[in-house]
Amino acid sequence: MTQQMHLGAFLFNLGNHIAGWRMPGVPTEGLMEFEFYRNLAETAERGKFDLIFHSDGLGINDSYDTVLRHTVAIRPEPLTLLSALSVVTKRVGLAATISTSYNEPYHIARKLGMLDFLSHGRAALNLVTSSTDQEAQNFGQIRHLSHAARYERAREFVDILKLLWDSWEDGAVMFDKESGRVADPARIHAIDFRGKYLSVRGPLNIPRPPQGHPIIIQAGVSADGQDFAAHVADIVFSVERSLASAQSFYAAAQKRVVAAGRRKDAMKIMPGPLPIIGRTQAEADAKDRALQDLVPESLAVSYLSDIVQHDLTHYPIDGPLPDLPASNGEMGRRQMILDEANVAGTTIRSLAVKMVQNRGHLRIVGTAVKIADFMEDWFKKGACDGFNILAPFHPGALEEFVDEVVPELQHRGLFRKDYQGITLRDHLGLPRCNDRNRT
Amino acid sequence: MTQQMHLGAFLFNLGNHIAGWRMPGVPTEGLMEFEFYRNLAETAERGKFDLIFHSDGLGINDSYDTVLRHTVAIRPEPLTLLSALSVVTKRVGLAATISTSYNEPYHIARKLGMLDFLSHGRAALNLVTSSTDQEAQNFGQIRHLSHAARYERAREFVDILKLLWDSWEDGAVMFDKESGRVADPARIHAIDFRGKYLSVRGPLNIPRPPQGHPIIIQAGVSADGQDFAAHVADIVFSVERSLASAQSFYAAAQKRVVAAGRRKDAMKIMPGPLPIIGRTQAEADAKDRALQDLVPESLAVSYLSDIVQHDLTHYPIDGPLPDLPASNGEMGRRQMILDEANVAGTTIRSLAVKMVQNRGHLRIVGTAVKIADFMEDWFKKGACDGFNILAPFHPGALEEFVDEVVPELQHRGLFRKDYQGITLRDHLGLPRCNDRNRT
Repeated sequence: MTQQMHLGAFLFNLGNHIAGWRMPGVPTEGLMEFEFYRNLAETAERGKFDLIFHSDGLGINDSYDTVLRHTVAIRPEPLTLLSALSVVTKRVGLAATISTSYNEPYHIARKLGMLDFLSHGRAALNLVTSSTDQEAQNFGQIRHLSHAARYERAREFVDILKLLWDSWEDGAVMFDKESGRVADPARIHAIDFRGKYLSVRGPLNIPRPPQGHPIIIQAGVSADGQDFAAHVADIVFSVERSLASAQSFYAAAQKRVVAAGRRKDAMKIMPGPLPIIGRTQAEADAKDRALQDLVPESLAVSYLSDIVQHDLTHYPIDGPLPDLPASNGEMGRRQMILDEANVAGTTIRSLAVKMVQNRGHLRIVGTAVKIADFMEDWFKKGACDGFNILAPFHPGALEEFVDEVVPELQHRGLFRKDYQGITLRDHLGLPRCNDRNRT
Repeated sequence: MTQQMHLGAFLFNLGNHIAGWRMPGVPTEGLMEFEFYRNLAETAERGKFDLIFHSDGLGINDSYDTVLRHTVAIRPEPLTLLSALSVVTKRVGLAATISTSYNEPYHIARKLGMLDFLSHGRAALNLVTSSTDQEAQNFGQIRHLSHAARYERAREFVDILKLLWDSWEDGAVMFDKESGRVADPARIHAIDFRGKYLSVRGPLNIPRPPQGHPIIIQAGVSADGQDFAAHVADIVFSVERSLASAQSFYAAAQKRVVAAGRRKDAMKIMPGPLPIIGRTQAEADAKDRALQDLVPESLAVSYLSDIVQHDLTHYPIDGPLPDLPASNGEMGRRQMILDEANVAGTTIRSLAVKMVQNRGHLRIVGTAVKIADFMEDWFKKGACDGFNILAPFHPGALEEFVDEVVPELQHRGLFRKDYQGITLRDHLGLPRCNDRNRT
């Protein structure tokens, strides 16, 4: 069998396009309803996806009334939602986005371990570092941590997660009714971690999870983020806009993984294209325009302001991007915009339009065959191990992908026709983690 | 219709008796399996219980190897578990125990609000203050907070929860596809709370929950705990061992509630009896002895040591309780033991045996009729508004209660034959909370 690609469904509430919620057929009343997410999860599982991947943020961005008025600021909480979804799915992986900046690793090790038990080995976490002051202020801080400090804390955070997941050895629980022994104290270990940011004694209060360690995803594209990923990530959710840059990112990432002492196939690179699918190219183009026409102009500029962390609403919309002051926020997408702004003729309007179309990710507009061609091309040419699909609106665009693109990929032998295993590690071809206390 | 009592099922993993897991028929392999809890939740719902109530703790007590070896130290995480259970139940309330000492109120407001959405208005939280150094050390602290400071922080914590739940007004979300408006920024409010222990900006990133505010339960029996409850609790989980003391607690609690400016029926008092049920008194007595015989003597003394926060394993087991140094841990059960130790003839052994039988709660051994008699007596004589049932082993003892005691209570007109409403507030006869921003 030829190498198979991996697929994730990135779930950003009503859809990944900023105006996706306005499309006909999007049931906006579903945003806080379990049945809406149940349908999405079942659709992804019908499409044999490796995982669904739930975005998150720890605050409301209320810097711009326009953004609050016109975009879906509500963020259904991933851990509760994915726990509920574990009951109605059997195979698809369940990934929660988790901030390492404003969580305690003991809580997260425990909740993700629990999700791994509830789902029989399908839990994953997408570790992010929070980068807005609004989020910091919801957790007793005035400003968020510096970029470097965020990643230092994140490294400690992951070290602690892994130590806690291993704090009960495999086989520590016995439940011998005859002798009255529940567990073997010699196989339950305090971790006594003392870091610069975090200190945790342990042991955890649940046994070692079914996967050993749930799957770790990382999405930061800064240098700190890439170095972090090389050491700890099983999956990288990358942002790539061209084949050439994706190939060079892929090659560099494999080098970093090997330099970190890991097998080069231990980390799967999955960029996030946003597909807009039509039965014909003309239909896809029309859908693309319809989505674009649903974005108010005032929203686009406020949204861009928010990403570059500088208020652009008072600059001429058809003029160039002004010089921006230094920033301590999210760097990846900001840098991408600064790079594009250097191209002659680029205006605030053109940048804003581009950004709201796909939130920085690559948009592919066309038939199922064209989209499969694109995916095959990147996959075969060493640009990625698979894709995180950003359906522009839910559930319709995810259903189209599953019903039209997935069969095309299966027909080409690029994607599984059914699950071969049970756990998310099985789907990804990654072994269960060894127990560090029993090697 | 006469006044009806309220019933909760207190779920302490495999059972509320320390040796319950050793009883025949207890499926110990179910401890980390969803199906085990699904069965318990469905049983409680079949019995028309107001709620199930999941205990918790944020660490492993590894002070005594004996305790770790012979008791179930594992604590399945309540928020993930109850979220999963929301999918397979329709009416029963879902209460999670939450520490106000080592959680961030933003996370808890959000996860409980989310559970309220997932369950269509059935979420509750049992707020506790953590009282062991082991727990503190899992969250970067050396020692836990002083008793008074724990409750000061808890008060701030609840104030923040309520402000966050109200930070989106009812009706703030509009989703008008025509105009492109998602929400009305004028109806979304930062809370800007600045306390001694906690500071939170807000607003929350989910809308106002179905119940307005999820139900708040409080279980502390110290003076600080009782004062806290009078201000914020919808349910008090009390520890009472005699009718007279329960009556006086009930009368005093109602006075405190009224003094706090609330209606006296706004807070339901529900003590936690542990019923041991037999078809005859002899059968119940035999079951009681069987449970007791399953407790290793060494465990009983270590367990008592743990509750009084002083190592008693080196004192003569048939001698009196020694004078104990002052402590900063949990006070309620410790004081109960100190009171009992003053009775002539009391030994370490007799105290230890009593404590492991029911963890401080009242044990009732007898037929379903005898247990219903007890419950009717307390309920009609002003000792409580209902009961949190501590089944000694799962699922058998909960099933016996539902199949034998509940019909007896229903027959006497003391308990509902079916649910009359949908939300937990409906079951408790408490109205949806007003929106403070729209009065």
